[in-house]
Amino acid sequence: MHTEAVRHRVLIIGAGFAGLNAAKGLKRADADVTVIDKRNFHLFQPLLYQVATGALSPGEIAAPIRAVLRRNQNTRVLLGEVTGIDVEARRVLMKDGGTEEYDTLILAAGATDNYFTHPEWAEFAPGLKSVENATEIRRRILIAFEYAERTVDAEKRKAFLTFVIIGGGATGVEMAGAISEIARDTVKHDFRSINPAEAEVLLVEGTHRVLSTYPEDLSEKAEEQLHKLGVHTLTHSMATGIDAEGVDIKLGDGTRRIATRTVIWAAGVRASPLGKMIAEQTGATLDKGGRVTVQQDCSLRGHPEILVLGDLANFTQDGSPLPGVAPVSIQMGSYAAKLIQSRLQGEAHGSFRYWDKGNMATIGRAAAVAQIGRLHFGGTVAWLLWLFIHLMYLVGFQNRIVVMIQWVYAYVTMNRGARLITGEPKNIT
Amino acid sequence: MHTEAVRHRVLIIGAGFAGLNAAKGLKRADADVTVIDKRNFHLFQPLLYQVATGALSPGEIAAPIRAVLRRNQNTRVLLGEVTGIDVEARRVLMKDGGTEEYDTLILAAGATDNYFTHPEWAEFAPGLKSVENATEIRRRILIAFEYAERTVDAEKRKAFLTFVIIGGGATGVEMAGAISEIARDTVKHDFRSINPAEAEVLLVEGTHRVLSTYPEDLSEKAEEQLHKLGVHTLTHSMATGIDAEGVDIKLGDGTRRIATRTVIWAAGVRASPLGKMIAEQTGATLDKGGRVTVQQDCSLRGHPEILVLGDLANFTQDGSPLPGVAPVSIQMGSYAAKLIQSRLQGEAHGSFRYWDKGNMATIGRAAAVAQIGRLHFGGTVAWLLWLFIHLMYLVGFQNRIVVMIQWVYAYVTMNRGARLITGEPKNIT
Repeated sequence: MHTEAVRHRVLIIGAGFAGLNAAKGLKRADADVTVIDKRNFHLFQPLLYQVATGALSPGEIAAPIRAVLRRNQNTRVLLGEVTGIDVEARRVLMKDGGTEEYDTLILAAGATDNYFTHPEWAEFAPGLKSVENATEIRRRILIAFEYAERTVDAEKRKAFLTFVIIGGGATGVEMAGAISEIARDTVKHDFRSINPAEAEVLLVEGTHRVLSTYPEDLSEKAEEQLHKLGVHTLTHSMATGIDAEGVDIKLGDGTRRIATRTVIWAAGVRASPLGKMIAEQTGATLDKGGRVTVQQDCSLRGHPEILVLGDLANFTQDGSPLPGVAPVSIQMGSYAAKLIQSRLQGEAHGSFRYWDKGNMATIGRAAAVAQIGRLHFGGTVAWLLWLFIHLMYLVGFQNRIVVMIQWVYAYVTMNRGARLITGEPKNIT
Repeated sequence: MHTEAVRHRVLIIGAGFAGLNAAKGLKRADADVTVIDKRNFHLFQPLLYQVATGALSPGEIAAPIRAVLRRNQNTRVLLGEVTGIDVEARRVLMKDGGTEEYDTLILAAGATDNYFTHPEWAEFAPGLKSVENATEIRRRILIAFEYAERTVDAEKRKAFLTFVIIGGGATGVEMAGAISEIARDTVKHDFRSINPAEAEVLLVEGTHRVLSTYPEDLSEKAEEQLHKLGVHTLTHSMATGIDAEGVDIKLGDGTRRIATRTVIWAAGVRASPLGKMIAEQTGATLDKGGRVTVQQDCSLRGHPEILVLGDLANFTQDGSPLPGVAPVSIQMGSYAAKLIQSRLQGEAHGSFRYWDKGNMATIGRAAAVAQIGRLHFGGTVAWLLWLFIHLMYLVGFQNRIVVMIQWVYAYVTMNRGARLITGEPKNIT
C-alpha cells in the first residue's frame, strides 16, 4: 500500500477508441490509471448511423466504460467533464470543482460537429456524434413520413418526403443510402396515403465526388450504387443556408432552394476545445480543424508527458496528416500504452506508425465500397467485408451477437426493428 | 372500390395490448380499421423495468405499430393524439385539428401513473410507464453510483446509495430486486472508492404484504427472496412527502425521513382522461382509478358501438373487477375483434370472459413467484416460467431472439449491457 502513493499516474481524458485502447493496454502497467469521460459508456461511432436509421438500438453499440475496464485493477473510471488543464502543475480541473493530478496525460477527447461560421444550423441539421443526436435524427426521419401520411397539402408532403444530407464522406454516404432504403424497402407497405418511394434523398458534397478521400474508382462505384438506391448526389455543391423549412444549395453559379424538414449534417468535425487549451500552454500548433500537431511519438514538443491521440491529434505520416478514423485512434491508443510502459522500464520506444488496413463505407443492402491496400472492392464483397470487420471491432461480446442477429433479421425481412420516435419534438412541425 | 366507402369503420384508440390485438383480430374483417396512437410503436410494458435497470434497450421491447400491422390491408395507422370524442356525431377530434369518424369505437388508451393528491411528486419519483420514464430512471440509478464514487461526504454518499421504490406490486418488486442486483452483482467490480453492495434498497408498501393481489404464500416467498437480495421491505408504510433530497415515510404512528436521491414510483395508475370524457357523454360510471365501467361485452350501456378495453375498462367478473394486467388486455382485444365480426355478420356473440392463466413476478436471478391456477411456484421454476412466457408474448420475432441472448449473456456474466446514462439531467445534483 505504501508504494502505491508514488506510482506513476496516467490520466486519460476521453474513453473513445484512443483512450479506451490506451487504458486497456495499460492493464498490467506499474501505474495508477485514471480514465475521465463525460459519458459513462464507450460508443462505437462507426455504427451510430444505424441507430439514426432505426436498425440498431443505442445500447447495442455502446459498452459501459466501467464494465470494459472492470478487470483493470490499476484503473479508476471517473464520470465527469474536464474544464481546465494546468500543464505547469500537471493537473486537470473538473467541472464539479475537483482536480486530478498526473505524471503522464493522454488527451483523447475527440471531436464534435463543425458548423464552421454557422453555429445556428445545428438546430436544423443535427450531426451524428452522440446517442442523443442519433435518436433525434431517427425521430425526425420517422416523423417526416408520419406527417407526410397525415397532410393533405401536396407541397408540404413533398417537403416532408425530402431528406438532405450535407457532406459526402463515409457518414453522409451511409446515411443517404440508409434513408433511401427505409423509404423504398422498410416502410414500403406501412403507409396507406403516401408512397414512401416518392421520397427524395439528396446528398450534397462540396468536391467533385463523394468519398473524396477514397480512390477515384471507388467514388464512382459508390455513386453508382447510391443512384441505384435512388439517392441524388449533388457534387460541387454547398449549403449556404439552412432553416426549419429548407436548405439553400449553391450549385455552380446558381442557388437552389430545397424545401425539406429533415437535414442531416455530415460535413465536418472540429476537435475538442481541450486541444486549443493545451496548445496555448505548450506552444503546440493547431491545424484548421483544431487538431493539435503532435510529434512522431504522439507527444508535444517539450512536453513528453503529454500525449495527444485520435481525432484530436494532427499526426503527419509520409508527408500527410492521418485521417480522423477509428483505426488510427485504436492504433494510437495501443501505441501510447506501450510507449508509457517502455518509459517506465527506462527503455527506448520507436515512433508511432499507422498501419493502414484500408477504408470502407457501406451504402445499403449488399452495397458498399472497400479499399484494402491496392485491392478495391464494390458491391456484395465489400459489403460482407464491412459487416465482418464492424462486428469484429464492436466492443462487448453480446453486442456482437445481438447486432449480428439484428442484421440478419433486417436482411431477410427488410425490416428495421428500432424505429422508435422518442423524446421531445424540437423543430419539425 | 365503390363499396369501400360504405364499409363499417372501426376506430381503435391506443395500440397497447388491447388495441393492437383488436386490430390484429380484425385483419380479415370486412371493415375499414384505423388505429390511432400517440407513439409510433407498441411497447411491451411488462419488460420496461428491464430497460430502467440497464438489462435491455428500448428498441428491444418495442415494435413499430406500422410494421406489426403492415399486412393488414384494411388498416390505417395514424400517429396522433386524440383530444376529444363526440359520441353523438360518432367522431373523434385530433390534437392537430383533424377528425376521424367511426361506426364502432374501441377505446383502449390505457393508464398513466397516479400520484393521487401529489402531482408535484412526479418530478422526484418518476413512474414506469414510457420509454422516456425508463431511460430517465436508468439515468438516475446509474448516476447515483457515479456521484457516490466521486463524493467525499459520507452522508451524501449514503443518500446516493439509497434507493426507494414506492409501491410493492409486481413492478415495485421487480424494480427493487433488479436495483439490488445491480449493486451487488453487476457493478461489483466497477468502482474503486465505494462498495456498491453498501447500497440500500427500500420497498415501501401500504398494505401488510408485497404483491398484495397474489396468494399470501407467494407474498411470503417474494419477501424472502427480496430479503436474500438485500431489499428492505417496509409494509404498512406510506410516502407522505417526496422531494429532491429524500422521502418521508409514515410507519405506524411515526414518520421516518430517508435521505435518498433516487425514488421510483410504482404505487398506482390512473386511467386515461379519455375515460372520463366518454363517461360524461354516455352516463357510464368511473371507478376510483378513473376506469370506465363496462358491460359484459365490454360495451357501454346504451352504446353498443363503443367498446372500452384494457387498463381503461372496469370489467366485473365473478363479482370482482379484473386487474389491469397484460393478459386481460390481450384477451379483451381479441374478444372485441371477434365481437365486431359477429355483429357484421349479424350473428350473436357471447360475453367476454377472462381466462386467468395465472400471475407472475420476477425478483432477480433465478428468483420469482408464479401462480398458475392452484399451483404456486417460487424460485428457479417460477423464474424459468416467467422468462419463457415473457419471451413468448414479446412482439416481434427478432425482439424475442435478441432479448433471449441479452438474458443468457446477463445470466452468465452478471453484466447488464444497456447501462447508458443518456439525456439531460433533471433533478439529481
